[in-house]
Amino acid sequence: MNRVNKIDLNSDVGESFGNYKLGLDEEVIPLISSANIACGFHAGDPSVMRRTIRLARQNRVAVGAHPGLPDLIGFGRRYMEVSLEEIKDYVTYQVGAFMAFTKAEGLKLQHVKPHGALYNMAVQNIAIWEAVIQVISGLNKDIILFVLGGPGRKELEAMGTHYGTRIAFEFFADRAYNPDGSLVSRQEDGAVIRDHESAAKRVLKMVTEGKVICKDGFEADLTGDTICVHGDNPSAVMLVKKIRETLLEAGVDIAAVGTSL
Amino acid sequence: MNRVNKIDLNSDVGESFGNYKLGLDEEVIPLISSANIACGFHAGDPSVMRRTIRLARQNRVAVGAHPGLPDLIGFGRRYMEVSLEEIKDYVTYQVGAFMAFTKAEGLKLQHVKPHGALYNMAVQNIAIWEAVIQVISGLNKDIILFVLGGPGRKELEAMGTHYGTRIAFEFFADRAYNPDGSLVSRQEDGAVIRDHESAAKRVLKMVTEGKVICKDGFEADLTGDTICVHGDNPSAVMLVKKIRETLLEAGVDIAAVGTSL
Amino acid sequence: MNRVNKIDLNSDVGESFGNYKLGLDEEVIPLISSANIACGFHAGDPSVMRRTIRLARQNRVAVGAHPGLPDLIGFGRRYMEVSLEEIKDYVTYQVGAFMAFTKAEGLKLQHVKPHGALYNMAVQNIAIWEAVIQVISGLNKDIILFVLGGPGRKELEAMGTHYGTRIAFEFFADRAYNPDGSLVSRQEDGAVIRDHESAAKRVLKMVTEGKVICKDGFEADLTGDTICVHGDNPSAVMLVKKIRETLLEAGVDIAAVGTSL
Amino acid sequence: MNRVNKIDLNSDVGESFGNYKLGLDEEVIPLISSANIACGFHAGDPSVMRRTIRLARQNRVAVGAHPGLPDLIGFGRRYMEVSLEEIKDYVTYQVGAFMAFTKAEGLKLQHVKPHGALYNMAVQNIAIWEAVIQVISGLNKDIILFVLGGPGRKELEAMGTHYGTRIAFEFFADRAYNPDGSLVSRQEDGAVIRDHESAAKRVLKMVTEGKVICKDGFEADLTGDTICVHGDNPSAVMLVKKIRETLLEAGVDIAAVGTSL
Repeated sequence: MNRVNKIDLNSDVGESFGNYKLGLDEEVIPLISSANIACGFHAGDPSVMRRTIRLARQNRVAVGAHPGLPDLIGFGRRYMEVSLEEIKDYVTYQVGAFMAFTKAEGLKLQHVKPHGALYNMAVQNIAIWEAVIQVISGLNKDIILFVLGGPGRKELEAMGTHYGTRIAFEFFADRAYNPDGSLVSRQEDGAVIRDHESAAKRVLKMVTEGKVICKDGFEADLTGDTICVHGDNPSAVMLVKKIRETLLEAGVDIAAVGTSL
Repeated sequence: MNRVNKIDLNSDVGESFGNYKLGLDEEVIPLISSANIACGFHAGDPSVMRRTIRLARQNRVAVGAHPGLPDLIGFGRRYMEVSLEEIKDYVTYQVGAFMAFTKAEGLKLQHVKPHGALYNMAVQNIAIWEAVIQVISGLNKDIILFVLGGPGRKELEAMGTHYGTRIAFEFFADRAYNPDGSLVSRQEDGAVIRDHESAAKRVLKMVTEGKVICKDGFEADLTGDTICVHGDNPSAVMLVKKIRETLLEAGVDIAAVGTSL
Repeated sequence: MNRVNKIDLNSDVGESFGNYKLGLDEEVIPLISSANIACGFHAGDPSVMRRTIRLARQNRVAVGAHPGLPDLIGFGRRYMEVSLEEIKDYVTYQVGAFMAFTKAEGLKLQHVKPHGALYNMAVQNIAIWEAVIQVISGLNKDIILFVLGGPGRKELEAMGTHYGTRIAFEFFADRAYNPDGSLVSRQEDGAVIRDHESAAKRVLKMVTEGKVICKDGFEADLTGDTICVHGDNPSAVMLVKKIRETLLEAGVDIAAVGTSL
Repeated sequence: MNRVNKIDLNSDVGESFGNYKLGLDEEVIPLISSANIACGFHAGDPSVMRRTIRLARQNRVAVGAHPGLPDLIGFGRRYMEVSLEEIKDYVTYQVGAFMAFTKAEGLKLQHVKPHGALYNMAVQNIAIWEAVIQVISGLNKDIILFVLGGPGRKELEAMGTHYGTRIAFEFFADRAYNPDGSLVSRQEDGAVIRDHESAAKRVLKMVTEGKVICKDGFEADLTGDTICVHGDNPSAVMLVKKIRETLLEAGVDIAAVGTSL
């Protein structure tokens, strides 16, 4: 028996900047249900934001803001010593800029997903998740926050309830998991699942059984509301196709998280 | 008999950036009724935006977005060859970022006033005003656009009516005017009125009689909805005080343009 | 009889930035003799600069600084209202940064070629060429300035003599020329030569005969010291290969301009 | 008996940016002997760099590059996760840009002093000092590196010897020291010496006796080649005057470190 009959696929897109093109947005957006669109601090620019939102609209894909640290040269992937107040200010600024484009293009902002180092810093320090939730909650109670599933899930759920913000938990299609539901560090062998067949099967197992096979071979309980996939290169796009196909064949619909949470 | 019994005073504020402080915001904000707050492209940053919006709220001053060209080093004062589409994207981005802060701080965005070269480019090319109006109109019909009074007024009013956007005309307290209502170029002698007494009298005359004495001594008809004043330095703040005093003594109230348009 | 038996091929490279890759540097650098390397204002970053200088060194290609306007989002292609003093300061800064990398990597700076809008602004306003020459002359008399050949050649040569700076004139492989030696505007049909065979023949004719066939079919005198080619896409690289082949078959060597001026 | 009869006074200057003015450069530069001039990443811009170098030249003050992290909004004061390679690239770029201005203005680069978080990161991780020394050593063996005196002095001296780079040790006029020669953390009470009289006496004691009175009242050995002073505000400038006066009265000359190392 299926635990769920639909799941969200999300991907980071809109990461081009000025004359610089990054990612296969035209190819990956038709395959996903939720687009995380860069907001100009670590990637993206105003024109790219509008263009990407239009592309999502054409493909009936839900749009989310993907705010990052103010580090274009480092693509928002480098830790920076920013205060919680600065994080709130940076997220407010970027999400606000994004909301203006969604409004102008006749869409609603479905979700917010912090990018890169900001996301990783939040995973390590729940006070950052709280800062982001406070911002989102103050802007619109309909906005969903994407966070990493696994340990800390209960605290995050409680925090979402407290501030009236919906939380969606992410599952990474191409990452190995520890028994406690945390990601295997990229430093370790086998952290990244490179085989498309395996990755797709893992996704299906998580979606239909709420379980993931860990490094040691044992199964751990893990549920997620949205699967993070990538569109950086042709192989990544192939994996998304494989995941879609595997899910659809198993009778699982691909649908934006906003329709099911 | 007074033509109007109230007028708006607006000033560019929130122009600090990171560690850099610019302008006497704490002194000038209590004296004005509408604050034009920089949005991070030519000046201002997310934290400065929030701080300035709070300062305006404490002083019951209406807040407006003051978007500029992406030229921090040139303070948005240098002409750039930007397309109308780029202008729309840059204004959407900045106004959106600003609106998130007003929402977070419990205020409404009253108005938008383009900054520096963007403002001057619009004065010379009405297609830029139209681009800005299209953006504003698409975001919220309550937002008022600040434009230069004088020649072109009728076209701008028609444009505002067409897009459903309210237009407020600016009068510059410290600038000399030509008989057609345009500003005397800064290249010419006497372009800037340096005497506070004279400047205040000119403001009062414009407000109560709808007239301005031009370079040649003749009076020209000129009405405005909002007076642009400055808070860059102690002398500028003194001028604002003088203008306030002169207006209040003559029975003219100082009130945000949103309350009277 | 050949007028010259060697010619320089130059191309804009090092235009990647952070996580953004632009241009087929690995493919085009082995084909050229002079590399114009972006300096961080319109494209390029410190790490890209070093990497590109190393790549040039491995291929025994001479290196030049390619300074641009401070407009990363516009790739330095948009006119900006910058003063001559600002131009001098921006060029000094970028060329200095570049020279440190050439020194660190054991190379010499061969040349400077302004990028995009800065180049085009200089073509229209010789005072900008003079500003750039003043900067170069003050840094090192061995640095060669790349300028557009055609009208204005004599004035530029005189200016170079005056300041003790060598000038190299560029010929564009893929652009049509007017009878006066100026480029046909990109607005006009036929401004860009898309056929590789024709482009290569034109280059050979210019190199060996000092002539170019103009739009109207007549031949005009035009000599150049360096041929500007591109490496943006696979077709552009194919053209460079075609030009090399055509030149080498005709007995013309490809050699950095610094070796022949 | 005096240990030394001359000492250097250094201060961070040239920290203005575009329209933003920071620091009392005109007042503090005449009082010091070495100017640490920002290079555009955390503060400063090309025009400010040139202007500040000219001001130093007029006052016969030696000039140094003051490179920082690429974080203008955070003034280079926030730790960032940058690699040693990135640090080398950023320092090379900034020092190179600076050297072009010194060359253009007829001066020599005397020294390099990393700014803010980059300096503090180096104090905590000697590999960063090594990266900076490698850069400096590759550019010019005459350039002196300014580092924090105290613990680690011997390793730094050995490193300088190894790479052929001269090292100057800094003493902070307004900071309390621990018995091991390290700075008392700013988190602790009494970390900053606010009394001008005391600060000046401490400087004199360090200069003439090579000793500093620590928190617990005991004297520790501590020598320095250059005293770091500030010019941010009128009180800081007053302190510099007091220090100068105290030193000169005691027969100690104020001279750029390059003249004595």
